[in-house]
Amino acid sequence: MPGGSNMTLHQFLWRAENVFPDRELVSRHHDGVSRFTYSEYGNRVRQLASALDAWGIEQGDRIGTFAWNHHWHHELYYGVPCIGAQLHMVNIHLPKQHVHHTVSEASDRILFIDATMVRRLENIYNSDPEAFSSVKQFVVMSDSVPDTHLSPIVDYESFISKGTEDYTFPPVDEEQPAGLCYTSGTTGLPKGVEYTHKMYWGHTMGLMTGELGLTNTDTALTIVPMYHVNAWGRPFATVAAGAKTVLPGPDPDSKDIAELIEDEQVTTSAAVPMVWRGLLEYSHNHDFDISSLEYVISGGASTPEDLINSYYNQLNVKMVSGYGMTETTPVTHQSAHKPQTISYTNSELTKMRSQSGIPLPGVQMKVVDEDGNEQPWDGEALGELLLKGPWVTTEYFNSTNQTEESITEDGWFRTGDIVRVDSEGYVNVVDRMDDLVKSGGEWISSVEIEDHLMHHELVKEAAVIAIDHDRWDERPVAFVVSEADTPDEALANELREHVAQSYPTWWAPDVIEFIEEIPKGSTGKRSKRTLRDNLVDEQLRARVQENAPGKH
Amino acid sequence: MPGGSNMTLHQFLWRAENVFPDRELVSRHHDGVSRFTYSEYGNRVRQLASALDAWGIEQGDRIGTFAWNHHWHHELYYGVPCIGAQLHMVNIHLPKQHVHHTVSEASDRILFIDATMVRRLENIYNSDPEAFSSVKQFVVMSDSVPDTHLSPIVDYESFISKGTEDYTFPPVDEEQPAGLCYTSGTTGLPKGVEYTHKMYWGHTMGLMTGELGLTNTDTALTIVPMYHVNAWGRPFATVAAGAKTVLPGPDPDSKDIAELIEDEQVTTSAAVPMVWRGLLEYSHNHDFDISSLEYVISGGASTPEDLINSYYNQLNVKMVSGYGMTETTPVTHQSAHKPQTISYTNSELTKMRSQSGIPLPGVQMKVVDEDGNEQPWDGEALGELLLKGPWVTTEYFNSTNQTEESITEDGWFRTGDIVRVDSEGYVNVVDRMDDLVKSGGEWISSVEIEDHLMHHELVKEAAVIAIDHDRWDERPVAFVVSEADTPDEALANELREHVAQSYPTWWAPDVIEFIEEIPKGSTGKRSKRTLRDNLVDEQLRARVQENAPGKH
Repeated sequence: MPGGSNMTLHQFLWRAENVFPDRELVSRHHDGVSRFTYSEYGNRVRQLASALDAWGIEQGDRIGTFAWNHHWHHELYYGVPCIGAQLHMVNIHLPKQHVHHTVSEASDRILFIDATMVRRLENIYNSDPEAFSSVKQFVVMSDSVPDTHLSPIVDYESFISKGTEDYTFPPVDEEQPAGLCYTSGTTGLPKGVEYTHKMYWGHTMGLMTGELGLTNTDTALTIVPMYHVNAWGRPFATVAAGAKTVLPGPDPDSKDIAELIEDEQVTTSAAVPMVWRGLLEYSHNHDFDISSLEYVISGGASTPEDLINSYYNQLNVKMVSGYGMTETTPVTHQSAHKPQTISYTNSELTKMRSQSGIPLPGVQMKVVDEDGNEQPWDGEALGELLLKGPWVTTEYFNSTNQTEESITEDGWFRTGDIVRVDSEGYVNVVDRMDDLVKSGGEWISSVEIEDHLMHHELVKEAAVIAIDHDRWDERPVAFVVSEADTPDEALANELREHVAQSYPTWWAPDVIEFIEEIPKGSTGKRSKRTLRDNLVDEQLRARVQENAPGKH
Repeated sequence: MPGGSNMTLHQFLWRAENVFPDRELVSRHHDGVSRFTYSEYGNRVRQLASALDAWGIEQGDRIGTFAWNHHWHHELYYGVPCIGAQLHMVNIHLPKQHVHHTVSEASDRILFIDATMVRRLENIYNSDPEAFSSVKQFVVMSDSVPDTHLSPIVDYESFISKGTEDYTFPPVDEEQPAGLCYTSGTTGLPKGVEYTHKMYWGHTMGLMTGELGLTNTDTALTIVPMYHVNAWGRPFATVAAGAKTVLPGPDPDSKDIAELIEDEQVTTSAAVPMVWRGLLEYSHNHDFDISSLEYVISGGASTPEDLINSYYNQLNVKMVSGYGMTETTPVTHQSAHKPQTISYTNSELTKMRSQSGIPLPGVQMKVVDEDGNEQPWDGEALGELLLKGPWVTTEYFNSTNQTEESITEDGWFRTGDIVRVDSEGYVNVVDRMDDLVKSGGEWISSVEIEDHLMHHELVKEAAVIAIDHDRWDERPVAFVVSEADTPDEALANELREHVAQSYPTWWAPDVIEFIEEIPKGSTGKRSKRTLRDNLVDEQLRARVQENAPGKH
């Protein structure tokens, strides 16, 4: 049969080692900063692979990690898939019972643990040792083992000392699963998503294309955690591109990030808006030079326009958005230029870059209403975003139910995101489907009301959720953290008026509750589920019934 | 089984149509210049596909083209593969008997003919109608049919009028062959190379990466003929990237090219050195503005340093090299920047850009001696370049012998090119293996002697070939086109001295023959085979025997 060779990660590792042997991978970790050339890095990856092979890991076996971003984790990103095994990146912020679920469902045979996380993992282990019955070896990512009863345990450097740099990788098929991440849905236990070599390969190529494509002259700081959706694919792409890789280590704060950018002359980086907000605030009271930065990617949550403006005006840094999900490896969209956006005014550019952007080559999308009817790309029609592409999953791990629910019969992945698409293909996520308020058959975007509320001078944070309503099916309720000393019903009325000034009056929340803090999930996103579970009671529901408008 | 969707060309067509609906494809052809937006282009591709389907084309069927670069040919590049059929791009410059061989071996069911090539194809047909027995339909790429006895025949516009824009492409597997090109070896009939959707997909992604990656803000003029190795993959890549596509039509001359660059504000283009040399000469006597050009790619033959310098100094245009072969879809290398080359001096840059460059992500290479031993990348060791990658073929069409000869057991493709690789991974092709002179077990690079001879003020062109020698196995002979009025043996001696000044004396050609013109092949390359066939006689062989040196 005609064809080329398999599309596997080996090709990218080969390229970094051979074509960019002197480019560096810089790793901040619990014990300092280490530097490796890609030549040295490649040797360590092969030594690791050889040690895994010698230990008894076979093709198809799964290996778990519980770790931050450093060279040990990065070596596992390549070393594990390159022997045909599968890397399971456990989210260190998951609730205990979710870690139990994911490690036991994945049947991880070895678990690699960040030196800073041994105590935490021990606690999780103690609460259900049975969940770890598949794990036959713990490895601490360090050169020594701390006091722990996790057993058998060895340090990473001793573990790989059993292997050899001269190791030759076995043939690995491109359809072989190379990675596994879990995604937290709105209900139930996390669901696994597997990534084959070919999915990673395509995604990696995608990240090297276009205006925001990684190239060999980049120095890329990967802040997005490596336990979080393949660190947005950047560990694979920086190596493939021959870019210099910088890893910020355990729990980096703004000072760590600022120092790494300055010391390593970072040109591009990727993180959630919360991180960028933190660095911006830090910059107000600290002197550091980030003039090497050409652009940063903000993703994982919608990027506020004021943040983009502040980066542009105060730091002279271009901030763009990326979009994706665990099920899509993750990046499918970036808010990159098109020819006609080159001449945009600053405010048009900011708006464009705060949104999800256009699909990468290879990715296809459509927008559908509740009945699956395709919606026009007119910048107005709302609908759910559906995706398809070589790195968009077509099934969940071990969950036929979830597959049936989330993937259409003709292979489209349902993102659950409600979007508008303009005539140029730029996607604007206005809501999560399960956060969307549907009042009398019409959508109300909770995200837009939240954003609008946050423009009011007395509002610090806001979250809007849907509450069932007898007549309207659903109505919006807002939870607001106010700057006012004593927020009261007068302020609530003022805020309703504020919403009604820019939106239909029936978009104004029927009830506005003032609270101390909006609860956050493990990735810094506001957790509406926690809000709903903890703060919605019968009294609130009754007030919503009463206060709803008489008509739209 | 986990995975994403198939990697097929539909995804790129979809992107151009939907994300770049207003970007243009500009087509110069026999009857003027036509412009289509990608939205219109997509409609025409689907109408064509629908008409092919209605005509009776099925998955796996082959369709031939015999044509230059214009929108009709471009529509076939996408329309044919997207219904699961295979496009066979017949090289219009092949000798008659080679066209007979390729069309009959491919069993082309329909043959699409350039309006300017009907007479030529008729002649080829007449000399062996039997070779065309599989062809049941001729289609002229035009809106009318000229007087011809090729039958049945219809014009393209009438043919697609039977189809509909609303057509939905059938599902096509990524392993389905999408294209077929023939390569002329040094001996025997041309050999076919098939390209699957997945090979094209990977190659297209590769062409969008790195410093020289095509992006949506590019306007790309594809001069390299579309009958020649997929026009270096650019018809697929410009569409995928959302770049504006410009096609120069039948047999473009320097004036046509200059006008298109100026009129369409072309930013990048690709062609063989001969074309660039022509445009440079044209620029000396004609005024045109090519300041929109950011860079041009020169490939298909080695790019002389003086040409790169002239483009830089006289036209302010960056010229880089691309490398590849029919068997590799074709592009595997480009002379792109690495971090350390940014600070190169002009002359270092010129040298770097005149060579083949570094491998694209996905491509792996190695250099081996005659016994298959891997050679170091030290900028000195010579050996054959072997390639492997998702768009490097692992078999020939219908030729098990050729597959066995050219592809190693572990899947490496033997390019037949003798190269040096430096420690940074930059490849320098010094010779074709079958042009290489092996004197007493040591390589002599015919290309280097040729280049060196051409630096002599009285040498206009030179070609060096190997002649069998009793003692040394092979010895070099040079054919020289001289600027001197009466080139004689005194000049020959002077040239030998000129070579010996820079190379070992035994590198100097034993015989130097002065001729009027170096014969050229269909793609403008010097045809050493013709030289050998026509100019090497017993007398010459005897002189070589006599004149060979006594020692190395």
